[in-house]
Amino acid sequence: MPELRRDPIIGRWVIISTERGVKPSEYPKEPENDRKICPFCPGNEHLTPPEITAYRQPGTQKNKPGWWVRVVPNKYPVLVVEGNLQRFPYGMYDRMDGIGAHEVIIETPEHDKEIHLLEEKKAEDIIWAFRDRILDLKKDIRFEYILIFKNRGLSAGASVSHPHSQLIALPMIPVRVKQELEGAKKYYDYKERCVFCDIISQELSTGERVVIENQEFVAICPYASRFPFEIWILPKKHISQFETIQKHEVTLLTQIMKTVIGKLDNVLEDPPYNYLIHTNPLKDHFSSYYHWHIELMPRLTKVAGFEWGTGFYINPTPPEESAKFLRESE
Amino acid sequence: MPELRRDPIIGRWVIISTERGVKPSEYPKEPENDRKICPFCPGNEHLTPPEITAYRQPGTQKNKPGWWVRVVPNKYPVLVVEGNLQRFPYGMYDRMDGIGAHEVIIETPEHDKEIHLLEEKKAEDIIWAFRDRILDLKKDIRFEYILIFKNRGLSAGASVSHPHSQLIALPMIPVRVKQELEGAKKYYDYKERCVFCDIISQELSTGERVVIENQEFVAICPYASRFPFEIWILPKKHISQFETIQKHEVTLLTQIMKTVIGKLDNVLEDPPYNYLIHTNPLKDHFSSYYHWHIELMPRLTKVAGFEWGTGFYINPTPPEESAKFLRESE
Repeated sequence: MPELRRDPIIGRWVIISTERGVKPSEYPKEPENDRKICPFCPGNEHLTPPEITAYRQPGTQKNKPGWWVRVVPNKYPVLVVEGNLQRFPYGMYDRMDGIGAHEVIIETPEHDKEIHLLEEKKAEDIIWAFRDRILDLKKDIRFEYILIFKNRGLSAGASVSHPHSQLIALPMIPVRVKQELEGAKKYYDYKERCVFCDIISQELSTGERVVIENQEFVAICPYASRFPFEIWILPKKHISQFETIQKHEVTLLTQIMKTVIGKLDNVLEDPPYNYLIHTNPLKDHFSSYYHWHIELMPRLTKVAGFEWGTGFYINPTPPEESAKFLRESE
Repeated sequence: MPELRRDPIIGRWVIISTERGVKPSEYPKEPENDRKICPFCPGNEHLTPPEITAYRQPGTQKNKPGWWVRVVPNKYPVLVVEGNLQRFPYGMYDRMDGIGAHEVIIETPEHDKEIHLLEEKKAEDIIWAFRDRILDLKKDIRFEYILIFKNRGLSAGASVSHPHSQLIALPMIPVRVKQELEGAKKYYDYKERCVFCDIISQELSTGERVVIENQEFVAICPYASRFPFEIWILPKKHISQFETIQKHEVTLLTQIMKTVIGKLDNVLEDPPYNYLIHTNPLKDHFSSYYHWHIELMPRLTKVAGFEWGTGFYINPTPPEESAKFLRESE
């Protein structure tokens, strides 16, 4: 059973794998090559835990080929579904069972086609899978938050190169989301406006940090970008929860994601990146101050002692320049 | 002039190099090898900006060999000394000039001897250099905080392999330190005790996460370690500011640092790591709730989408095991 431990100073939770600790000699000195047999390719369905859901051709069998999006439990979950929600003291410290869900969304049967290379309808189904999984997991009232994220490339933490994203359901609201909620609330209390809506309005009026927009979404390089070529994708309308996304919005979100990832690929030549969806906590159905969005971070620079020590970031490429490069590329 | 920009949602500051943006093609695809001519080796003093201070043999010249610790301005500073402290609005955003100091402490003339391999008196002088530089920079009343940190190894962000650490003086208290100050204050308000003192007392009583201790300092793997083999070194007495360190404490800190780095080197075979000194803000001379300490983080795991999205960390080696490995190694 993994264990959640709370830092007694700043209240940050850490997931500790206590069952079988990784030994010093087991940490790789060099990045590992992709394994020879891809567990996410069709025909290898037996290499993953049994599927939770899949979008597949009628008449095909579960855990067999015929799918175009497939969701499975993570084989090495950082959190598990069974356990107790109670917090325990441990001397002056706090701990709790590492409860949660950890799933993998296999985005396509094709080993080397990221979203921008997929046909539109198939790409849309990745977004539908995100929504379906959140709506299903939401029924488990122990969960407070669901994070959807993607690691692409070895230096972004991906251990398998086959296109996939991940989902983690958590029994608490993570500190990073709490900071956004609190900051957005402060702004709302003062201005009576959503800070994200104001950002969108300012960005659209100057255009200098806009990468691309369509009827429902805008992609920008944020003013205080932590990383070169950092991109946020936001719905233009004020919507606090990702999982309320509507059919025509799925189409337009897919289009903007395909374009943005395609542009990144062109400008930076298949860079490693992470993206994540920040949305309102599960039990808070509507928020007038929080606005869901996607944060996408190419991993071009190294986070070092200064960033760890301060929480500051150093970004060597101004977002205005990043946005210009991206706008001007195909 | 670098620019400091404030994130309008969570108030995080980012340093943007606006003068000359790094272009997409300039981000290295592969880690660079160490440059052939080391700018920090004796005889190459002309390759760094002129020295700020150096501990050197009597009769030797500035910016010439004869030193054993040498402090120089960073050739590629992320912040610069000249500029204005004022904050400016930029639409809804905030910015200010990137004012600060960014110095490099060259720890030894020997290209491949980290602190654990240096003789004790020479190693102590690294700590004295930290103290001297803080006391000197403190005279500039624009600075609110000074962070001393070290990046060791390419994947920890070091671009030069010659042993060195760095110092950055900042015109504001960084968010990460603010979180610690606020958390420690909350604990103090409730318990009327310093949370760090309580941690030390609990750790010494159980011993399971203690790596080593001496009369004045203790090294532990913290209960909620973010990273495998993360180590904190704390003074046993309640001291809020690093720069008040006394002569016999410098000796004992040097001893414990030499031992800790030596053990890390043995257990993990010269791992990349970062360390940083967290101390009280410059203008607050004494705090009953804050306690200076060193945080040392080997870089064995990759921070990915989950960590960015939540602020949670996943640690595959429990700190009890890390501490045991370190205790039992030489």
